[in-house]
Amino acid sequence: MNIDGKPYRSIWLNDDGWSVSIIDQTKLPFAFEIAELRSLEDAARAIKTMQVRGAPLIGATAAYGLALGLRDDQSDNWIDDAAEILNATRPTAVNLKWALDRMKEALQNQPRESRVATAYETAKEISDEDVEVCRKIGEHGLGLIKAHAARKKGEPVQILTHCNAGWLATVDWGTALAPIYMAHDEGIPVHVWVDETRPRNQGAYLTAYELGAHGVPHTLIADNVGGHLMQHGKVDLCIVGTDRTTAGGDVANKIGTYLKALAAKDNDVPFFVALPTSTIDWKLQSGADIPIEERGGEEVKYVTGKLPDGTVARVEIAPDGTDAANFAFDVTPRKMVTGFITDRGVAPATPDGLLRLYPERMKKDAA
Amino acid sequence: MNIDGKPYRSIWLNDDGWSVSIIDQTKLPFAFEIAELRSLEDAARAIKTMQVRGAPLIGATAAYGLALGLRDDQSDNWIDDAAEILNATRPTAVNLKWALDRMKEALQNQPRESRVATAYETAKEISDEDVEVCRKIGEHGLGLIKAHAARKKGEPVQILTHCNAGWLATVDWGTALAPIYMAHDEGIPVHVWVDETRPRNQGAYLTAYELGAHGVPHTLIADNVGGHLMQHGKVDLCIVGTDRTTAGGDVANKIGTYLKALAAKDNDVPFFVALPTSTIDWKLQSGADIPIEERGGEEVKYVTGKLPDGTVARVEIAPDGTDAANFAFDVTPRKMVTGFITDRGVAPATPDGLLRLYPERMKKDAA
Repeated sequence: MNIDGKPYRSIWLNDDGWSVSIIDQTKLPFAFEIAELRSLEDAARAIKTMQVRGAPLIGATAAYGLALGLRDDQSDNWIDDAAEILNATRPTAVNLKWALDRMKEALQNQPRESRVATAYETAKEISDEDVEVCRKIGEHGLGLIKAHAARKKGEPVQILTHCNAGWLATVDWGTALAPIYMAHDEGIPVHVWVDETRPRNQGAYLTAYELGAHGVPHTLIADNVGGHLMQHGKVDLCIVGTDRTTAGGDVANKIGTYLKALAAKDNDVPFFVALPTSTIDWKLQSGADIPIEERGGEEVKYVTGKLPDGTVARVEIAPDGTDAANFAFDVTPRKMVTGFITDRGVAPATPDGLLRLYPERMKKDAA
Repeated sequence: MNIDGKPYRSIWLNDDGWSVSIIDQTKLPFAFEIAELRSLEDAARAIKTMQVRGAPLIGATAAYGLALGLRDDQSDNWIDDAAEILNATRPTAVNLKWALDRMKEALQNQPRESRVATAYETAKEISDEDVEVCRKIGEHGLGLIKAHAARKKGEPVQILTHCNAGWLATVDWGTALAPIYMAHDEGIPVHVWVDETRPRNQGAYLTAYELGAHGVPHTLIADNVGGHLMQHGKVDLCIVGTDRTTAGGDVANKIGTYLKALAAKDNDVPFFVALPTSTIDWKLQSGADIPIEERGGEEVKYVTGKLPDGTVARVEIAPDGTDAANFAFDVTPRKMVTGFITDRGVAPATPDGLLRLYPERMKKDAA
């Protein structure tokens, strides 16, 4: 998508053919800085410190991180160790492991001398495929927005989203925001209610930033506001992303998603989850089995922003000595999800709905 | 309640017999500052800028504000004008108007020369009665906490609250927090999950502050977290305050309350609303008829906190040029409220439940 008219991806291979660039998302929206990854450690740190975040982008970064890690050592043991280091950076996103497994599979029967090249090729494939997957999610979701637009007669379709499931969370397009970008680019009037998404403020820092940079009308709201808006008919549909979706249809996503899903259900507002194939965990049926990352309380107690003089600072918002708890995700039960927007099409949030989109899984179950 | 072991009220008449002191709540939790009100304008500004907030404290401040305003002019016209100025400071809290009506009634048939004395006496009555009302709310709510404590066998009773309905929102004790202070003071183990309450952070700034100052165990959480906690059995009951409750049982309270009520309902967690008689709007049946204050978007886009050097600063968290919407309250339908904790006792959140506590209203309806 565009930043000030110039198209970007969130991760790309540099012209030197080996180092990798990312947009340092910890600096947004106060500064646009590009960070270079020159080693596995750089990539692991980028994921852990959330310079990159969003399940698909984490997967792509881990893939390139493994490629970077193989430049000095191409042994089987090191491939396993390197993958383990990268896999340990974040506990919840299932396609971190998916991307690393795919890298290991590609490398498995390769002679050592071709492993670096294979690793870079596979990382590029993972990135390019993610762009294509998101583009397809956008196309399938666009149909839903068009259906609302037809009823709104020129008024903007009002869409609420939580956290950042935009192009900054993927390699390009985004998941939840892909249909919105497509609708906007086609001239369909849309307006996005952007949940701030405390405690890390991804809505304020990233979603508002990328929508603004691309020119999509939007309004920032506190996380507390969505229910009120839905009670008053100000939301036509919700679209959120997901970090892990079970085969049963339960959805793990940024903390607070569940509360918005409850409000959508209570007010008959369609609640859609946009997801690439790679975020489906076919081994899990119930969302209760998804491990939920608990992060440090400082994220709750401190807020980063811009001072009047333009410098970026962190302020403490809690009284001295306050304890804070910081669960990063919650699970929305499938009964509150209207449907999934996937790269294969739109499906009801049920085990059967998912299996109809992924018939190859049905065969696996039968085998 | 106590601050560092010293008992305070949130508003008091000074020893000079006419000026009034408040705790400047816009400075908390970073500084404990007492502000003097020496005129009606001081009082109106204190309410409008939220140096005082919380429906009962707003009422008491308006009452003292009218008394201050009468010192120079005791005419009927000025009483009406002064009440109008104070009444216009905040649109949602019903007991702002309640307190002013009561002041006007007390002044109505008074000779001019005794009006100032009457105004101060009535303002003192309103303040003292609020303390007594909150104490009774605490006693009635204490029974609910004790019932949970009996089942928890020494483990702390886990209570979630939203915004600040503590003693800083009233003259003393608080509404939602009154039962919690009483339980704590009686040695019943309690632990409070404190919703941060964006955008004004009353949970972080005030509830965490006053619970900490009095020694009650608590943990600060982002507003997004409560649903997850309830899904995992980590909340025994919710207690919140209210700015206005209709005769029908619908509850207007700080934005985001509705989302927690939805989660409580979905997880069979009791959801109680603590309220003094003065916040019941007997003229309204439906919560949809409660006007909802919309405040400036800057409150969403800026966060105040303490810099590493201890100075207090405001940082901007949104990208330049972002629009923000800021609805201050939402309405929780009575179907999601387990019950009301009032100064008269605990009642189900139904029109009949309320009327049984206030039989004099039944007579009025029959008349």
